Amino acid sequence: MVIVSGMRPTGKLHLGHYFGVIKNWLNLQNTDECFFFVADWHALTNKYKDTKDLKDNIYDLVIDWISSGIDPSKSTIFVQSAVKEHAELTLLLGMITPKSWLELNPSYKDLKFNLFFQYVRDFLLGKNIKVDEDKLRQIVYDTFYHKKDIDFEYLEKSLMDFSASDNISKEIVFNLKEGDIGKDIDTFGFFGYPVLMAADILIYKAQAVPVGEDQLPHIEITREIGRRFNHLYKPVFIEPKALLTESPKLLGTDGRKMSKSYGNTIALSDSEEEVNKKVLSMKTDTQRIKKSIPGRPEVCNVYTYHTYFTDKNTVEEIYQKCTTAQIGCIECKKILAENLNRFLTPIREKRRELEKDKEYLDKIIIQGNEKAREVAKKTMKEVKEAMGLMF
Amino acid sequence: MVIVSGMRPTGKLHLGHYFGVIKNWLNLQNTDECFFFVADWHALTNKYKDTKDLKDNIYDLVIDWISSGIDPSKSTIFVQSAVKEHAELTLLLGMITPKSWLELNPSYKDLKFNLFFQYVRDFLLGKNIKVDEDKLRQIVYDTFYHKKDIDFEYLEKSLMDFSASDNISKEIVFNLKEGDIGKDIDTFGFFGYPVLMAADILIYKAQAVPVGEDQLPHIEITREIGRRFNHLYKPVFIEPKALLTESPKLLGTDGRKMSKSYGNTIALSDSEEEVNKKVLSMKTDTQRIKKSIPGRPEVCNVYTYHTYFTDKNTVEEIYQKCTTAQIGCIECKKILAENLNRFLTPIREKRRELEKDKEYLDKIIIQGNEKAREVAKKTMKEVKEAMGLMF
Repeated sequence: MVIVSGMRPTGKLHLGHYFGVIKNWLNLQNTDECFFFVADWHALTNKYKDTKDLKDNIYDLVIDWISSGIDPSKSTIFVQSAVKEHAELTLLLGMITPKSWLELNPSYKDLKFNLFFQYVRDFLLGKNIKVDEDKLRQIVYDTFYHKKDIDFEYLEKSLMDFSASDNISKEIVFNLKEGDIGKDIDTFGFFGYPVLMAADILIYKAQAVPVGEDQLPHIEITREIGRRFNHLYKPVFIEPKALLTESPKLLGTDGRKMSKSYGNTIALSDSEEEVNKKVLSMKTDTQRIKKSIPGRPEVCNVYTYHTYFTDKNTVEEIYQKCTTAQIGCIECKKILAENLNRFLTPIREKRRELEKDKEYLDKIIIQGNEKAREVAKKTMKEVKEAMGLMF
Repeated sequence: MVIVSGMRPTGKLHLGHYFGVIKNWLNLQNTDECFFFVADWHALTNKYKDTKDLKDNIYDLVIDWISSGIDPSKSTIFVQSAVKEHAELTLLLGMITPKSWLELNPSYKDLKFNLFFQYVRDFLLGKNIKVDEDKLRQIVYDTFYHKKDIDFEYLEKSLMDFSASDNISKEIVFNLKEGDIGKDIDTFGFFGYPVLMAADILIYKAQAVPVGEDQLPHIEITREIGRRFNHLYKPVFIEPKALLTESPKLLGTDGRKMSKSYGNTIALSDSEEEVNKKVLSMKTDTQRIKKSIPGRPEVCNVYTYHTYFTDKNTVEEIYQKCTTAQIGCIECKKILAENLNRFLTPIREKRRELEKDKEYLDKIIIQGNEKAREVAKKTMKEVKEAMGLMF
């Protein structure tokens, strides 16, 4: 099958990316014809104001991919913006895409919700107010989703209860209403990124696209746009199916979802020392306040990590010793750190090698671009013929 | 100055186009550096469903231009879709264009208003109901513009009065509400065409753009997008000024605005016989029911035509003879037809010549495309450098 998948160049990859995306790619590249692309134009949809790291991030992403085992001799690795046909097809597909399809795209509201939540949280923390994040998230969630429009009145009322301060509540709501938070993504480009995504996929006649559950609506729009084109003109496109990838069970070092914005990530490029430090700081079973109390691996994030990085026998042994208070958390973490580093060492070494060989990287990228362009050009020829275009 | 201007390829040009656009271009090409482009991608914004004539229309447009005196050795004549950089820049500018700027674009509502008006008119005419077009237009206008949303209730009530039939009124409103009229342009592409237009203009660093008054909002958006880019990144773009062109006083053969949808046009490519026939069918002063009644040139469409196509002395003579009942309308029209044909003959002959020489046309278009592309590529290099893009 032809598979297309991309990642935005937003910084170095962490274990969440590895187990959420890369591991899946590693399997696919052995069985399928894979196009993996750096979605740099997509990065502009919400990061257009700060592009100074864009080039470095592109290299970093390709380095992370290859270091992790993505093999340029098996997969086509390329940069989206190098294949201008993506822009041309986006323009053409935009002509036949009803606005209403895009208005239903949940990502926009979700992203804005997150921006609002982060703003409120940080504002309260800045005022030294203790924040129950789950409760606060629920308040902001209801503000966004229990009515058609954002319910600022509800937010103000809820924040008064939450922060026990009328003034703070009023100030937050005023800033959200009148300020710039979330305004950056009220752009034509952000609104239309599902069209760009459809072009990315359809142009390679992908049969399948690996996605997380939250991405399913995008694949559905892609299929609908492809179908509409085929119906209006000639059957050119293939409707790709979604290869649903499970979201990784591996959490951040603090037990929340691994995310750069939480500062709880372990990057593929972290040094041995950084990894040791991060693992030692991980939360374990909070009830186990001393070694003599038996632990509960089921609720321990470190134990979950072991199931990823430690051999099966040792994992069983740790389970046994933890639940019988024969091994302490520090010792257990040291084993994890060692195994995690064993996992990361080859990736880290490959990265170091690649970082020194920009020429090789450029060669891989240029070759990938050319290969992608060749396929894209072929599809565009069919597209333009079907639409009756002259050029 | 660098001047950019384009026309959609929607069929053969008529006198309205000539005096509204081409005549202005003819002046500009002698003094300025002109880029004249066939806006074929723009044609897709509202005509994406029917593209079978697109290629022919592109050739027809270029033939009409050259026949009218647009000189490929002075001006750059090219086809928008051949310069892919327009699509790339559209994509990039879209990232920084607030949706709200596009939502203010009046064209969308205006176009939909016209579609609705035409539908209602044709529906009533189909039911053999006599239609006062001005009155009907006012009703549809109020339906569209006196409230924020389309006021269907008002339309239904007004149409009842207008057509003296409850059923017809209800049927029309039902069809407008539930049917497809105007739905075709509820697309992402139509919504975003001011961004495409901004790219068309900014990419050549145009200093001025000749426009009619109805196009002023688009130039304003173009200027704003350019300014925003320059502010966010680096000063790359020039803010073009609008060269306001007067809308032509030359009306259609029936005295309304010259427009293909009214069937009242005289095409540049009309044969001598067609012109004779059309001129003879023109309305004159309706009070002058016989030759012996003096005419009023001020209200006579034929007289206005004379001021365009007949030499000044003869025009004065006609004025004199008409107001003193010494010349009849038929004779007056014959003079006009002769002069109009004298005006059109060289255009017609040039067209016949060009129609036979597709090779020459292709050469002109390809040369123009290349010249435009060269400039566009240069600007895109600056754009990408300013934005920190890799490719």
